[in-house]
Amino acid sequence: MTQPSSRTKVHAPGTRPDVRVPFTEVRLADSPGPAGPEANPPHRIYDTSGPGSVPEEGLLPLRAVWVAERADVEEYDGRERDLADDGRSAVRRGEASQEWRGARRQPLRATAGRRVTQMHYARQGLITPEMEFVAVRENCDVELVRTEVAAGRAIIPANVNHPETEPMVIGRAFLVKVNANIGNSAVTSSIADEVDKLTWATRWGADTVMDLSTGDDIHTTREWIVRNSPVPIGSVPIYQALEKVDGEAHELTWEIFRDTVVEQCEQGVDYMTIHAGVLLRYVPMTAARITGIVSRGGAIMAGWCLAHHQENFLYTHFDELCEIFAQYDVAFSLGDGLRPGCTADANDQAQLSELRTLAELTKRAWAFDVQVMVEGPGHVPLNLVKENVDLQQEWCDGAPFYTLGPLATDIAPGYDHITSAIGAAHIAWHGTAMLCYVTPKEHLGLPNRDDVKTGVITYKLAAHSADLAKGHPGARDWDDALSRARFEFRWEDQFNLSLDPDTARAFHDETLPAEPAKTAHFCSMCGPKFCSMRITQDVRRHAAEQALSDSSAIAKGMESTSREFVELGASVYVQH
Amino acid sequence: MTQPSSRTKVHAPGTRPDVRVPFTEVRLADSPGPAGPEANPPHRIYDTSGPGSVPEEGLLPLRAVWVAERADVEEYDGRERDLADDGRSAVRRGEASQEWRGARRQPLRATAGRRVTQMHYARQGLITPEMEFVAVRENCDVELVRTEVAAGRAIIPANVNHPETEPMVIGRAFLVKVNANIGNSAVTSSIADEVDKLTWATRWGADTVMDLSTGDDIHTTREWIVRNSPVPIGSVPIYQALEKVDGEAHELTWEIFRDTVVEQCEQGVDYMTIHAGVLLRYVPMTAARITGIVSRGGAIMAGWCLAHHQENFLYTHFDELCEIFAQYDVAFSLGDGLRPGCTADANDQAQLSELRTLAELTKRAWAFDVQVMVEGPGHVPLNLVKENVDLQQEWCDGAPFYTLGPLATDIAPGYDHITSAIGAAHIAWHGTAMLCYVTPKEHLGLPNRDDVKTGVITYKLAAHSADLAKGHPGARDWDDALSRARFEFRWEDQFNLSLDPDTARAFHDETLPAEPAKTAHFCSMCGPKFCSMRITQDVRRHAAEQALSDSSAIAKGMESTSREFVELGASVYVQH
Repeated sequence: MTQPSSRTKVHAPGTRPDVRVPFTEVRLADSPGPAGPEANPPHRIYDTSGPGSVPEEGLLPLRAVWVAERADVEEYDGRERDLADDGRSAVRRGEASQEWRGARRQPLRATAGRRVTQMHYARQGLITPEMEFVAVRENCDVELVRTEVAAGRAIIPANVNHPETEPMVIGRAFLVKVNANIGNSAVTSSIADEVDKLTWATRWGADTVMDLSTGDDIHTTREWIVRNSPVPIGSVPIYQALEKVDGEAHELTWEIFRDTVVEQCEQGVDYMTIHAGVLLRYVPMTAARITGIVSRGGAIMAGWCLAHHQENFLYTHFDELCEIFAQYDVAFSLGDGLRPGCTADANDQAQLSELRTLAELTKRAWAFDVQVMVEGPGHVPLNLVKENVDLQQEWCDGAPFYTLGPLATDIAPGYDHITSAIGAAHIAWHGTAMLCYVTPKEHLGLPNRDDVKTGVITYKLAAHSADLAKGHPGARDWDDALSRARFEFRWEDQFNLSLDPDTARAFHDETLPAEPAKTAHFCSMCGPKFCSMRITQDVRRHAAEQALSDSSAIAKGMESTSREFVELGASVYVQH
Repeated sequence: MTQPSSRTKVHAPGTRPDVRVPFTEVRLADSPGPAGPEANPPHRIYDTSGPGSVPEEGLLPLRAVWVAERADVEEYDGRERDLADDGRSAVRRGEASQEWRGARRQPLRATAGRRVTQMHYARQGLITPEMEFVAVRENCDVELVRTEVAAGRAIIPANVNHPETEPMVIGRAFLVKVNANIGNSAVTSSIADEVDKLTWATRWGADTVMDLSTGDDIHTTREWIVRNSPVPIGSVPIYQALEKVDGEAHELTWEIFRDTVVEQCEQGVDYMTIHAGVLLRYVPMTAARITGIVSRGGAIMAGWCLAHHQENFLYTHFDELCEIFAQYDVAFSLGDGLRPGCTADANDQAQLSELRTLAELTKRAWAFDVQVMVEGPGHVPLNLVKENVDLQQEWCDGAPFYTLGPLATDIAPGYDHITSAIGAAHIAWHGTAMLCYVTPKEHLGLPNRDDVKTGVITYKLAAHSADLAKGHPGARDWDDALSRARFEFRWEDQFNLSLDPDTARAFHDETLPAEPAKTAHFCSMCGPKFCSMRITQDVRRHAAEQALSDSSAIAKGMESTSREFVELGASVYVQH
């Protein structure tokens, strides 16, 4: 009796009982062998789906013990909640809606004089449970994790106030990661929708999720998201700060921004996009572009710089941000506010000038032991893609690169998950550590649930294409397991090994819906008579039966056996 | 009154009145300028949709005059129709079904001793109307077309018995082309469905269509397809030959194959995949592969070689095929029967040995003035892609490369249009001339109408990404026109310039269905307050109003105007 194909969640142990690393395990059916069925080892797939939560209650704080054990944080009262945190409309209503009612913890921060970042620990030579978790997850030596984090070439986003996360690492020495953006806007979407999108995105493989909410209830939406997220959450605090001044960019101040950052640190945001590289002198460089400034944060800061004719306050107050981030272990995602918005604007003076500044800021953050990744474009024709990652890696001393796509062409709105996956696979192969997904709705509207799934799956396959091209240890095993299943017509194994088993199974059933077809030794594309894989199996069996492993010997041996082959029926086709 | 955006078909003239080259012309709305509306030039897009036909009647024979004028062909009776041409089941039924009832012409072939190929004319220094049509279509000098065809670096597939085609060229000096596969199989699909898929595929941009039918009514299906096709039709004659021997590969003979080729030449097939490189001695090289032989034609010929222990009859009779092809101007598509079926098998000994043989055959065909392209894989990790096209171009002296994908990973069945578009864009950038599309159903089932469209659009964007990366003259104009429309919120222009206006429009309307939204100066992703493009427009206007074009001057000028900017409302956001 051969075992049936299955797909289940398992946990791999670390050296301590509370390090339990999730994997999707695919148990495979047996292969047909010359002497009977041959067992196949199970295949394990990196799993981001988390333990699952009731949205109203949130996830258990798995990392709380690890944070506490380090004895370098303290509980404190936190900043006072302001109705404006949920936007001006909450102030006008006089109440916040859909308030988070699950467990509330006092916020934590470093005790005076301490830095509580994974980079700090790594530089001290300490191996944290987070690092160990990551090493098991990546199937690598924990010293590789520690040294990469210590050198700034990798980050483990892990705010002490987001103990619900299952630790993960972003860096070019590790598997390429995928971020999914969610977030309501003034036009549409509800909190429940956003929490659902979070869960849905991590189910399909999102490694981190950015909450880009810009509408009402911005604080409360984030609370629901962070409390339910098993993956690190990123944000762009300038969006919320702008809501607090009713959308008037010139009314933004460092104080409002700083307060917003602290608010988000206390909530547990793991990394924040900070557009500190949009310097006043760079703004005019965008005037002759076809699409000017397309980053929202970049445009906000450019507008502020112009209105005040002052240097970007994120740049002038950058060290203060570092001090704050070091208290919570929030990582910088240095925003590329001047990224190109079309292929024509790629790799121009504005973009590369900003990148120089992001390199300077990377080193300033590292001086505070604060983790950093650097954001990249955007829209770049294939011939200019590699230059982006090469320059970023060189100038930023190997800090992880985190790119949005890039789109390889601008002519296919509605298909920009694909135009960008082409660029994303390419840039990740050359060293980008994390890819921000793009959904089919990019440039046209807000992604719904289906778009989120399509975006995540598309980026997972792009990321894996890069892992494969990089020769990342173990990456090809997955392809090989699936290819073997395909070749042997183990349909259920093929579905279960897929990035999206549901779609693979549904597509197959559309043409051949009957259950027996899933064990049929032919597939619907060719029909029973024309199956090339079937023919190859016969070819191989023919060769194997002669026990001639050397090619020339096989060729010689064939003459004598060709007659027999025909006499035995030469049934290179299944006859139906 | 600004002109409304529109998308219509226009025809560009050649030097003779019957050379009328179709384009999709997108007329654009005006741009807002500092002194009022500014007109935008219309944008022309390469158009493959043909003049449109009533399926039962077929298309008009546009090229018939050109063929006749050359006075090197003669009408003849043609081979006798055999019920077996429609497969064994037609023989059993005793009749062919859905017989073609439209116009029938006597087949043409070269008069004795003549070669009627575009390559022959090009080598003679003749410029044919086909070459002129192509030059207008590609917006290039006709001498470039002639010299590339003469050198074998490009082909114009143009069977004298398929006068319905609008000529097109395949070669690395020209725009990257896309082929769509259609065809019924024993399991599913009807003739009407296949004709509909043909029309549908060319509507969305398929440059050629291959009829891969393997089931019943194989001759009749092809007749309907050829008579209705404005694009060159490719076929794999071994599929039909195999039907004639009821699927028994070892019963295939050169005579049956030859007769099938002549049958298809007379019908008007423009290029044929011939698996003449699957040599007996290469077959055992596939035994240790994960997925052996995955090409249907390759497997059939491998099976035949093994059964007879004889060399592939397509190889041994190759010169005879060349003589036949030269009489009709049928191009070889030299099949890669030993292509890898998974990333693990890429660039292996079997594949590269066959490629060496295809290079030899290329030169043999050229000796007969027969046009040739060479087929390539398949499944190749990104790091091995470039080697494929580099070796093919070197070994085959620049003969056009025609690749299926390649898929950059095997883990995403259901998304193989995307896994393969990643490889396709990459390989086309490095010199592949035509890409064979892959639909979402690849490896799982037969594509339906939606899958055909998705496959074509996906490959068009991959091909264009390559044109852009190659710096192909004029390629970026399309991106730039669309990016300008996007930046200026000319939504209708953006839709009309898209590869798929219907989907772009539908996605936009899903979030913001009201008609006024299409002229709104913000988009649904950010909502009215957070529109970065809006902010940039303000930044640019601010700069332009100062009439300071030099960056440093703008920066200096800003100080004096920043107060004014705020006083004027500093409205970097639209207030709603």
